[in-house]
Amino acid sequence: MDEAAPSFLPVAQQLERLRRGVVELVREEELHAKLERSRASRRPLTVKVGFDPTAPDLHLGHTVLLRKMRQFQDLGHRVIFVVGDFTARIGDPSGRSETRPPLSEEQILQHAETYKAQCLKILDPQRTEIRFNSEWLKGLDFEGVLRLASQYTVARMLERKDFKTRFDEGRSIAIHEFLYPLAQAYDSVVLRADVELGGADQLFNLLVGRDVMAAYGLEPQVVMTVPLLEGLDGVQKMSKSFGNYVGITEPPQEIFGKIMSISDELMWRYYELCTDLSPEGLAQMQQLVRQGRLHPKRAKEGLGMRIVADFHGEQAAQRAYEEFQRVFAAKGLPETIAEHRYPAGEGRVFVPRLLAGLGLVSSHSEAMRLVRQRAVEWDGEVLAPDTREVEVRSGETHLIKVGKRRFARVHFD
Amino acid sequence: MDEAAPSFLPVAQQLERLRRGVVELVREEELHAKLERSRASRRPLTVKVGFDPTAPDLHLGHTVLLRKMRQFQDLGHRVIFVVGDFTARIGDPSGRSETRPPLSEEQILQHAETYKAQCLKILDPQRTEIRFNSEWLKGLDFEGVLRLASQYTVARMLERKDFKTRFDEGRSIAIHEFLYPLAQAYDSVVLRADVELGGADQLFNLLVGRDVMAAYGLEPQVVMTVPLLEGLDGVQKMSKSFGNYVGITEPPQEIFGKIMSISDELMWRYYELCTDLSPEGLAQMQQLVRQGRLHPKRAKEGLGMRIVADFHGEQAAQRAYEEFQRVFAAKGLPETIAEHRYPAGEGRVFVPRLLAGLGLVSSHSEAMRLVRQRAVEWDGEVLAPDTREVEVRSGETHLIKVGKRRFARVHFD
Repeated sequence: MDEAAPSFLPVAQQLERLRRGVVELVREEELHAKLERSRASRRPLTVKVGFDPTAPDLHLGHTVLLRKMRQFQDLGHRVIFVVGDFTARIGDPSGRSETRPPLSEEQILQHAETYKAQCLKILDPQRTEIRFNSEWLKGLDFEGVLRLASQYTVARMLERKDFKTRFDEGRSIAIHEFLYPLAQAYDSVVLRADVELGGADQLFNLLVGRDVMAAYGLEPQVVMTVPLLEGLDGVQKMSKSFGNYVGITEPPQEIFGKIMSISDELMWRYYELCTDLSPEGLAQMQQLVRQGRLHPKRAKEGLGMRIVADFHGEQAAQRAYEEFQRVFAAKGLPETIAEHRYPAGEGRVFVPRLLAGLGLVSSHSEAMRLVRQRAVEWDGEVLAPDTREVEVRSGETHLIKVGKRRFARVHFD
Repeated sequence: MDEAAPSFLPVAQQLERLRRGVVELVREEELHAKLERSRASRRPLTVKVGFDPTAPDLHLGHTVLLRKMRQFQDLGHRVIFVVGDFTARIGDPSGRSETRPPLSEEQILQHAETYKAQCLKILDPQRTEIRFNSEWLKGLDFEGVLRLASQYTVARMLERKDFKTRFDEGRSIAIHEFLYPLAQAYDSVVLRADVELGGADQLFNLLVGRDVMAAYGLEPQVVMTVPLLEGLDGVQKMSKSFGNYVGITEPPQEIFGKIMSISDELMWRYYELCTDLSPEGLAQMQQLVRQGRLHPKRAKEGLGMRIVADFHGEQAAQRAYEEFQRVFAAKGLPETIAEHRYPAGEGRVFVPRLLAGLGLVSSHSEAMRLVRQRAVEWDGEVLAPDTREVEVRSGETHLIKVGKRRFARVHFD
């Protein structure tokens, strides 16, 4: 027996960990068989994950996937990070869209470096392989494309939800859009992936990979999707474009503050998806909170520290916690603050209507009087006496203080 | 002025000839403008025609298109014959179909040579350029394919009749099938075609070429389609697979005989589409036949001689005519023979029922008696006395003689 070859945990134990928090697993019996074979032959599985290098900033939402990758690594498997540089370099090939300009080779390399640095906060550098799909897609000739495209039908491609909706509504789908899922599938063929991981919204594309691998005479990959993390608003998925995200590279203080702003409900979701806390540990903590033996704010601080520690280390987490307490105390904020939602409207809100709507004042005239008396604070800053409107953007959360004791945290939709 | 440059006929005269016998012309005003420009600059138009080199035998149906190409040549324009070797070399890229095996490089070159030899019976060798589309399609990389495929939408592709039918009926369309019309359109981009000619069933594909050229910033080609020639049966289009064709390389005697077998109605159609007879000349001949001053058989002999002459020269045509008269006289065939249609059924017909059905005998028993007496001929051969059934195939035409004077020509459906 090769002493250098790795040994693996019993398959049942591996499966138990890998299944955790997964939305779809196609198919579990195949994963079981692959793990059995891997263990018997002492050869790690090849786990593939694709990333689009158009936006270089990773956020907490991406870490759900990264954490699942890390689990595979910790179990001894090999993770290949496929940077989709090929399509990024092309942009919109019709040249009609200005919103999707092609990226230069240099930009992509730069983005890939940024990605790598950010990913390695979660992943094990020793078990992470990074590949660029231009490596094989650039040289794919028309004959190769025809062969690839012959493996899938128009009708099945139109089953993909976004295609179906657009087709049914008479909105146009350009033919090259059908080639992108096939290109992603071809990545799996080239890498002979055992497993492909992705977000829940990627299920269709990952399943195309299964069919195309089979058509190329390979054993189909197992497909595993993880949930899309809700953003700080607890409603929409975390995304830079919704402004409801926690960036991996944000300063510790910023990350901690953002985590402290989320609802209690969302806190449990983040614990589940963004920390190593076991299901048992989570249940226990929830019970303590229900029993009033643990204040939810303490639980939230714990979450904030865990997340800061993941990205910046334990020390930074400790400092972020202390700094938060200091500012918090200095501002005289109470332990709990009522949370509200309010429409962002056209980007400006009329302050008297807002304050009255939140129940902080009893009338518009009271509100105006308090503003004139410099008794209204917005995120810790006193509003100027002549303030009537404040600019807000959808997705932002602001802290409002009226007089000495009235507080509200408002999330603008 | 460049004395070496060609001069062209006035545009109105060119248009008058080119429009003749055309099914669709998209768009006439564009063709007019292109001809004006060509004449003013003394530069010929580039006329593109694509041929699929899977079956090397051209038949009379193909010559309708070749004759239109020849008209362009006679008017001084440049015809490019695009051999679709690229897709022929690939066959069915999914590898599932046994009916469409890929052709080897050698086979394709051989087919192309055969094509060329056959085409040059009609075309002017000096003005015929032959190109293989693998020249530019082979080197088209994935990026180029994506750019090409981005120029056309799924919904518009599904408007093509055969795609639409299959899609509506739930029959599968593989995605690479969408790439073939685009590849053909790309040929036009590369060759900067002014005009593309094709059969009436090619209209959709030729129109894709217009759109794709525009997307590549080129002036769209004018599209011109010619009718599909009916086969010898006068019903289905002429095709090798229906067995109702006149091959360009068939011996003169064979061609002449086949032409003599067609109906009078079809004769006029062939005169129109397969000879240089002017519309006025055709009208005149038809009038003579109507007035009883020209026997239709004479008109048919004229057609047969013209067609044989096109493929084998005047001398061969004369010999074919004479040989036919000799055999005809020797067999004692009358000037006119009744024509019938009869179902081919399962590939065998019961002779007594056939003869009775055609009115050649008054009963099944009379038919059987005549067969026993060796008084029934099938295509000039006496049927054996014990014959009860004869094998026939759909699309075939046979001459039956009963006794001394009863004749029938039967087309089996």
